[in-house]
Amino acid sequence: MALYGGIDLGGTKIQAVVVDSERAADRGVVGAARHRTPHSGGPPAVAQELARALREAAAQAGAEPARLEGLGVGSPGEVDARAGTVAHAGNLPDWQAPYPLAAELSRTLGGVAVVLGNDVGVATRAELALGAGRGARSLLGVFWGTGVGGGLALEGELWRGRGGAGEIGHMVVKQGGARCPCGRRGCLEAYAGRRAMEARALRKQRKGHETELFTIMREHGHDALSSGIWAHALERGDKLARQLIERAVEALGTGIASAVNLLDVERVVLGGGLGTRFGTEIADRIAAAMRPHLFNDERPPELRVSELGDLGGALGATMLCTAHPDGRDSGLRPVH
Amino acid sequence: MALYGGIDLGGTKIQAVVVDSERAADRGVVGAARHRTPHSGGPPAVAQELARALREAAAQAGAEPARLEGLGVGSPGEVDARAGTVAHAGNLPDWQAPYPLAAELSRTLGGVAVVLGNDVGVATRAELALGAGRGARSLLGVFWGTGVGGGLALEGELWRGRGGAGEIGHMVVKQGGARCPCGRRGCLEAYAGRRAMEARALRKQRKGHETELFTIMREHGHDALSSGIWAHALERGDKLARQLIERAVEALGTGIASAVNLLDVERVVLGGGLGTRFGTEIADRIAAAMRPHLFNDERPPELRVSELGDLGGALGATMLCTAHPDGRDSGLRPVH
Repeated sequence: MALYGGIDLGGTKIQAVVVDSERAADRGVVGAARHRTPHSGGPPAVAQELARALREAAAQAGAEPARLEGLGVGSPGEVDARAGTVAHAGNLPDWQAPYPLAAELSRTLGGVAVVLGNDVGVATRAELALGAGRGARSLLGVFWGTGVGGGLALEGELWRGRGGAGEIGHMVVKQGGARCPCGRRGCLEAYAGRRAMEARALRKQRKGHETELFTIMREHGHDALSSGIWAHALERGDKLARQLIERAVEALGTGIASAVNLLDVERVVLGGGLGTRFGTEIADRIAAAMRPHLFNDERPPELRVSELGDLGGALGATMLCTAHPDGRDSGLRPVH
Repeated sequence: MALYGGIDLGGTKIQAVVVDSERAADRGVVGAARHRTPHSGGPPAVAQELARALREAAAQAGAEPARLEGLGVGSPGEVDARAGTVAHAGNLPDWQAPYPLAAELSRTLGGVAVVLGNDVGVATRAELALGAGRGARSLLGVFWGTGVGGGLALEGELWRGRGGAGEIGHMVVKQGGARCPCGRRGCLEAYAGRRAMEARALRKQRKGHETELFTIMREHGHDALSSGIWAHALERGDKLARQLIERAVEALGTGIASAVNLLDVERVVLGGGLGTRFGTEIADRIAAAMRPHLFNDERPPELRVSELGDLGGALGATMLCTAHPDGRDSGLRPVH
């Protein structure tokens, strides 16, 4: 047994896994736990919840966290992997100043070696190594959920630019277009991000458009339009939900085609809450929406749905550990 | 002396150079010639004109073409460097089927070793090695002329994807927007390409907008609005010219910012006929137009104007020769 821990820290959910890198079945997963991300208490509360989720996954694997070869964490916000800190994580509670997440987790978890990485980057790496990206020499990961994140793997290596690459959600699809949650105008995310879609649905409802979206949300005891709510509304034939999804698909097709015109990647992997929920049916529609904009339209990239779904981020996080067989030497020293 | 030939094949001009790679002054240029690209006669006529330009440059250098260590050619269209052919060069006369340009040039020029490359790619490589891209680990070259071409250098290597990367001119800046000369809608080139700008100026004039653009064109004996004509019109305070340039600058800012959001390159080099002609003044305006769209807006990439201008393509073409000290082993065997 060679056990590695991985955590995907999201704005709503924390997913922890423990994998045995010598086990082939189930992608090596021998323990998994999903917790809700705390809404308050700041970074310390989030760090505690991450530790709890990891302990639960480790217990399933029959191991103490301190026995892990390493623990990788995929985080939103500005990740400084060398310093082991995360700053400006907008979707997490009161998380602006750099917080020493790696050191804090290591301390709480018996001294395990912790490495931090970017959430979308690790999910892209996981798809490349284990999922829908296998065999691709160049890959664009598109994670369609609350926002629209992007990950790039070129010649088998993640491309990060100066640390901020992959912001496909903030590529402009319409000059002077819709206001994005980021404050800018015309971004892909302004049309396709779940948060922007929910805000638009609310405005439309207030203006008198009929929709069951918010009724279904309350029926399910949710306080936001999750991917499942959108799926239910479509199943019930909700017209506004259909229109907003169509608008998102159109924007995704445009933005992804622009990225492909620039990079000519051979494959695109669609993940994220909405991407995974809707699967191949929506991937086909996105591929159709890309076609009118692809410069090399006789050889579009393959568009595949994520094979790892919700586990992708956590699986990719385990690969941040340099000793992991699917990891690559990132030059990062883990924080103890 | 170690002499290398380089040719930049453009839709209007052919630029040939001969460089001595052991000479530091003038970037090693010991011979240069510029010819007009033939409008008829198909690929054989173009190949002959390339040979003539190269012979003229070689004569200035006091050398027979056969004495060159190699000859690189940067070409538009679909370049198959391994086969030594060019196909689908839309701006060149009757050039659809693959034409064995490398073998033909080698035969005409006494057996010199010929390597073909993509025109925008070689110009980007030249800026990286000798020009405004020196020292950058990641670079986006934007060549603003008849069309809008892009070249990417990541970690010092050109990124070509599956061979078609760099089509920044066909990134969409406005969904459902203006018709592009490529037939698609909303591409950057539909707003900023000189051909599209000329077509729009003509439509506007026919609808009664006053402009001196076409008068100046005739005064200079041209049959198209060259970069110089646009510059003259701006100097004369032509309102339509100013509006169309502003519209192009806005689209360039949007498209380049989108590319930077995706790739987070540290530097952008602006070249091409219009980019070189207008220089730093327009680069500053493009940088300002990028700012509202940059996701990491506290650290925009450096935007610099090409230092090699019209010679960039030809200088970069010399680097296609694997023996050239600024060349990189491309795995390509020259065609004799």
